[in-house]
Amino acid sequence: MTTIPATDQKSLLSTLAPGKRTRLRRLLFEFGPGEGTLMLLPIDQGIEHGPRDFFPNPASKDPTYQFRLAAEAGYSALACQIGLAERYYPDYAGQVPLILKLNGKTDIPSSDEALSALNASVEDAVRLGADAVGYTLYVGSPRQDQDLAQLREVRSDCDRYGMPLVIWAYPRGAALDAKGGQSTFYAIDYAARMAMEMGADVVKLNLPKIDPERDKLTPAPYSELEVSQEEAIRQCVESAGRALVVLSGGSKISDEKVLEQTRFVMAAGGSGVIYGRNVWQREWSEALEIIEQIKESLLQNVSRIP
Amino acid sequence: MTTIPATDQKSLLSTLAPGKRTRLRRLLFEFGPGEGTLMLLPIDQGIEHGPRDFFPNPASKDPTYQFRLAAEAGYSALACQIGLAERYYPDYAGQVPLILKLNGKTDIPSSDEALSALNASVEDAVRLGADAVGYTLYVGSPRQDQDLAQLREVRSDCDRYGMPLVIWAYPRGAALDAKGGQSTFYAIDYAARMAMEMGADVVKLNLPKIDPERDKLTPAPYSELEVSQEEAIRQCVESAGRALVVLSGGSKISDEKVLEQTRFVMAAGGSGVIYGRNVWQREWSEALEIIEQIKESLLQNVSRIP
Amino acid sequence: MTTIPATDQKSLLSTLAPGKRTRLRRLLFEFGPGEGTLMLLPIDQGIEHGPRDFFPNPASKDPTYQFRLAAEAGYSALACQIGLAERYYPDYAGQVPLILKLNGKTDIPSSDEALSALNASVEDAVRLGADAVGYTLYVGSPRQDQDLAQLREVRSDCDRYGMPLVIWAYPRGAALDAKGGQSTFYAIDYAARMAMEMGADVVKLNLPKIDPERDKLTPAPYSELEVSQEEAIRQCVESAGRALVVLSGGSKISDEKVLEQTRFVMAAGGSGVIYGRNVWQREWSEALEIIEQIKESLLQNVSRIP
Amino acid sequence: MTTIPATDQKSLLSTLAPGKRTRLRRLLFEFGPGEGTLMLLPIDQGIEHGPRDFFPNPASKDPTYQFRLAAEAGYSALACQIGLAERYYPDYAGQVPLILKLNGKTDIPSSDEALSALNASVEDAVRLGADAVGYTLYVGSPRQDQDLAQLREVRSDCDRYGMPLVIWAYPRGAALDAKGGQSTFYAIDYAARMAMEMGADVVKLNLPKIDPERDKLTPAPYSELEVSQEEAIRQCVESAGRALVVLSGGSKISDEKVLEQTRFVMAAGGSGVIYGRNVWQREWSEALEIIEQIKESLLQNVSRIP
Amino acid sequence: MTTIPATDQKSLLSTLAPGKRTRLRRLLFEFGPGEGTLMLLPIDQGIEHGPRDFFPNPASKDPTYQFRLAAEAGYSALACQIGLAERYYPDYAGQVPLILKLNGKTDIPSSDEALSALNASVEDAVRLGADAVGYTLYVGSPRQDQDLAQLREVRSDCDRYGMPLVIWAYPRGAALDAKGGQSTFYAIDYAARMAMEMGADVVKLNLPKIDPERDKLTPAPYSELEVSQEEAIRQCVESAGRALVVLSGGSKISDEKVLEQTRFVMAAGGSGVIYGRNVWQREWSEALEIIEQIKESLLQNVSRIP
Repeated sequence: MTTIPATDQKSLLSTLAPGKRTRLRRLLFEFGPGEGTLMLLPIDQGIEHGPRDFFPNPASKDPTYQFRLAAEAGYSALACQIGLAERYYPDYAGQVPLILKLNGKTDIPSSDEALSALNASVEDAVRLGADAVGYTLYVGSPRQDQDLAQLREVRSDCDRYGMPLVIWAYPRGAALDAKGGQSTFYAIDYAARMAMEMGADVVKLNLPKIDPERDKLTPAPYSELEVSQEEAIRQCVESAGRALVVLSGGSKISDEKVLEQTRFVMAAGGSGVIYGRNVWQREWSEALEIIEQIKESLLQNVSRIP
Repeated sequence: MTTIPATDQKSLLSTLAPGKRTRLRRLLFEFGPGEGTLMLLPIDQGIEHGPRDFFPNPASKDPTYQFRLAAEAGYSALACQIGLAERYYPDYAGQVPLILKLNGKTDIPSSDEALSALNASVEDAVRLGADAVGYTLYVGSPRQDQDLAQLREVRSDCDRYGMPLVIWAYPRGAALDAKGGQSTFYAIDYAARMAMEMGADVVKLNLPKIDPERDKLTPAPYSELEVSQEEAIRQCVESAGRALVVLSGGSKISDEKVLEQTRFVMAAGGSGVIYGRNVWQREWSEALEIIEQIKESLLQNVSRIP
Repeated sequence: MTTIPATDQKSLLSTLAPGKRTRLRRLLFEFGPGEGTLMLLPIDQGIEHGPRDFFPNPASKDPTYQFRLAAEAGYSALACQIGLAERYYPDYAGQVPLILKLNGKTDIPSSDEALSALNASVEDAVRLGADAVGYTLYVGSPRQDQDLAQLREVRSDCDRYGMPLVIWAYPRGAALDAKGGQSTFYAIDYAARMAMEMGADVVKLNLPKIDPERDKLTPAPYSELEVSQEEAIRQCVESAGRALVVLSGGSKISDEKVLEQTRFVMAAGGSGVIYGRNVWQREWSEALEIIEQIKESLLQNVSRIP
Repeated sequence: MTTIPATDQKSLLSTLAPGKRTRLRRLLFEFGPGEGTLMLLPIDQGIEHGPRDFFPNPASKDPTYQFRLAAEAGYSALACQIGLAERYYPDYAGQVPLILKLNGKTDIPSSDEALSALNASVEDAVRLGADAVGYTLYVGSPRQDQDLAQLREVRSDCDRYGMPLVIWAYPRGAALDAKGGQSTFYAIDYAARMAMEMGADVVKLNLPKIDPERDKLTPAPYSELEVSQEEAIRQCVESAGRALVVLSGGSKISDEKVLEQTRFVMAAGGSGVIYGRNVWQREWSEALEIIEQIKESLLQNVSRIP
Repeated sequence: MTTIPATDQKSLLSTLAPGKRTRLRRLLFEFGPGEGTLMLLPIDQGIEHGPRDFFPNPASKDPTYQFRLAAEAGYSALACQIGLAERYYPDYAGQVPLILKLNGKTDIPSSDEALSALNASVEDAVRLGADAVGYTLYVGSPRQDQDLAQLREVRSDCDRYGMPLVIWAYPRGAALDAKGGQSTFYAIDYAARMAMEMGADVVKLNLPKIDPERDKLTPAPYSELEVSQEEAIRQCVESAGRALVVLSGGSKISDEKVLEQTRFVMAAGGSGVIYGRNVWQREWSEALEIIEQIKESLLQNVSRIP
């Protein structure tokens, strides 16, 4: 009897109840690039950062821009808040799956004690024909108890309705800042595991950043490790276990970087990417172009069957 | 395939479920100036500021003054709290639609951590024959989590009962004060988007004020923009997307200003105005006079079909 | 068309639903002095201040003293907490109406952030045969959001069960202290309006006190007004609109003062008084004597039909 | 017509609904010393203070010790938390009545803002065959609003199920410490009244202690009174009105003191005592001895018919 | 009549209702070492500490490692959070019993005010076929009131569904740190009693550590005792009364220590151990080896029939 290599994850779909399996399969195989990948378009920056994110490409201020992009460029799903889902999604129903994001907040107050309040329910998602719900969990926030209480309600309703649960696993808060901040390997790795143990079907992770100064502040053994970013990604994906991982993009970066990190996460056993500003802060034809490249990268680097 | 100009908003009414459509149509077309405009009379200053607002026109202290004004001058609707709705609205039922304001607070404590508590429910609105409900959202307040939790309940009940939701979108709180305060283009723009994404059918906005000193404190790109107030209004209206926008008046200003900003918001694609003190702090005949001018301005500047 | 004088309030009873009308009529016409007046006996000082209020007249410590007084001297109603209502009211059921006070607190902690917690429900009032419920609202307290949330529950149940709602409208809290304190015309005027807009059928007000030093700290125009106490009372009563007003007594004062302020409030359009210590801190026959004088004063100064 | 002497309380039992009367009668007449007295055995020190209270008599650490004592020495009832009730009471069911204590806390954190959280319900008490429930109310704590909200739930369920309510009325918290602390006549007197007005059927009081230094810090007239401890007890019992009073023991004192204060409370119109450490911190035969003396003292000093 | 020796606990099983008895018997007799012992495998370190605990044995990062270990090495049960239970337990259902851990938290924020939020329910445990639930109680935390409110819900549901309740009884928080910290005999002893009185069927305790410096800070008589660790364990087990006790392991220690403390707890009347890192931070064959030794030690030292 020998130990099992940690990356040899069993298929997630095979562990899911029928409702979750049906819906998640739609995202993984019937829409988007397919073959078990996830190419997700998030459009929650209008509340998380405010309209300032729309200035680089004024057309993006009209949610129709992102909805059309998601539908016409062939996304696995689009993720947005209840207001957009109710007013804009009906025009694209059946053309692209919907992930209803259930909580959100402005970035006006400090995030020292971050908490993202629920503004919609799993029942709303069912009513609107969504194929998954999204929940932002601020891992390590001093208000984690309220956060987990909210998530409990969502997770439990997901089990009741067979609705896949996507967790935006974001390390955050003053206590974490004292331990190296929200971008360290330590922080992202912890967030990945936390989301999985709290019941995520899909975990959205930010890119871990290797920064010796910050890493020194993290707990052992992270403070002493010398790993590449690629290796850090691999381990974070492992920490999510059977839950699928999609990599988050963040603010706009170069095309090379976009494609590189896409390869990294897929090679690590991840299932896809969720890039917002890196896509829709571009003019329509440029957006289509980078989407095409991302799609190719996803399909060429599949290393795990969900 | 080309991008869609952001101002070319699709009709809101066409996206609404029957109950909301029926009720909102009443305000837009059957009462008030009509032709898709909204002329709303708010009478919640008695609790938001106290009776001090009634001293300039002592007759206004008796709520009958505003109720009669709304009914006889032909308003699209009157907005008030539960106490007034229960005691004074019955005499005017059917003569002017009612927007039941569901939350409120005094201005006695500091607004550093502003939160406006629910004092009535959407069911109360249904029971009283109201055609919409109003909710004050303090965008950016440190207590936004409690605010959004309350709003979630209201929004969800609005969906259940087909009740239009008007959001008083007010930037507020200590964190915002450090970023230029509640009147900047940044603040109003953010509030407009937030309200729409949280499910508003109609968004009540304050007038953005251009003040270079304050604007410097706002996040980029707002800190670097050089826009006119008119342009700022236009963009705030755009940020509300398919949600309709009504402009708030604030404290009493000159007639010219009143009419100018009415033109601005209508030209920007807004749907109307909600002026209180600027109307009912005038003696009866003077009030009727300015109302007439506002009404004309609304009808002459319609630029969008709700 | 002319403005309506503010004091010419329409009858409250005519606006009430059947349950409220039936019960309130009992207080106004069938018990007590009648003719639309309210003479109420409060016995909640034992918890609001502790037993110290009973020392001037030791007999008053036994609640039987107040219950018998209310029944035998012919009060419109007696107001007390659930414990007294359950143990002492049954002996007087049918002899004097009951106002069940639903919240209360000790005065041991500071009232900087005053909140009076619910300890009974409108259902309790129905079960005990009460004809109204009482609720203390701390207008302007930093915890007004919790206060209003509690009141919402009570007000809504009052609508459901047809139970009249009496609001003890008390300005309170650190923020108010910085604006002149709880006894200014500003504070009482605000409290009167707030209670009415929150759904009170009857508002219990303290006597506004004219004190130039304190008034300077209040917001304009109050800081600049020069009004008599009588005029201030008149305006506070007006601020309560169609809600009936009863004047509170506070600590023991001279008989002349008691009768003077009774005349003031009745002349201002108020409906009566609610004096506790000024009545039951007297020996039995003295108490009966002052009650008789109050009753007369009420009946002689009626200026409004409820 | 003359005033009623305050101590001449009407029978409590005659005011109670059938369920409460049935159960309370069992404690007063069918078990324990009888003749309307209450001899109660509390066993909640293990959580309120921790196991340190069991060291003087190691046998007392096993709850069986107290359960047997209560059953074999003939107690009116035993009071304990849910864990003991579920694991140990079944062996003694029917042999001694049970008071299920519904809230509790450790004494590890400061009691500046004391609150005792509910850990069981009145329904649990019904299920376990208890004849009463116990609730600790921290009179005067800055968190009194949460305390009263909890108590409201308990009191209301007691009314629903006909379950007698025993309130542990404990003055507590930082604000009270500034007014002389938790043992003054002022504090105990206030607590007695508060418990009664909040709906207690039985009030558990600590012994008021006369201490001129501390009494100076209390509000008038307490700060100026010169009363004996015996007189203070008498007045506290009076403040509880028709609610029955049992005196608490506190830490271990001399036998003379135990019996003296037992006489005091009975002479004052109290109904009995609730001594824990003074009883079960003794070896078995010594415990039986003092119990016998307490029982005698109770029966010899009855001064009131419940 | 003589006192009962405190360690002579009556059988717990005989006091349990059928559902609890059926399920707990499965752990005690049908799985694991049997003969009334408990050998439990916890796998909640991934959220309580983060993935850092998996580095000593990378294979342990994949939860399959622990699940297989539990099933193949013959554990009484495995304890984990909802995410692992839903994704990994199905493969081992029927092979090893499941204890669903209902609350948890990260260790990122300070534990000065520790609270572990519920993330799953007893109903989840029923649905997943679990044989017990686990709850972490932070005894002595300043937020004990919220903790006990949560536990009340869990305990009550356990009674409803016949589900055994395992309490992780952890002394914690700033107030406790001032009294010697979380590892003293005082702290563990208090925690044991608290858990039992709050309704635990099984109590998980950490090892008390004798440290004269720290013990000086504890309340009397603990501050003056001179006891061995073995004796301290014995007394802590006694404090849990009829509730069964399992000893927790903590971070990795020597094999000798592991086996010594196992003997101690069994000799003291405990029922078993719950060692995580001490087992699964070892390579597979080494893990099996130590498990075998633990199992033997358990069976050889049984001193109490559950």
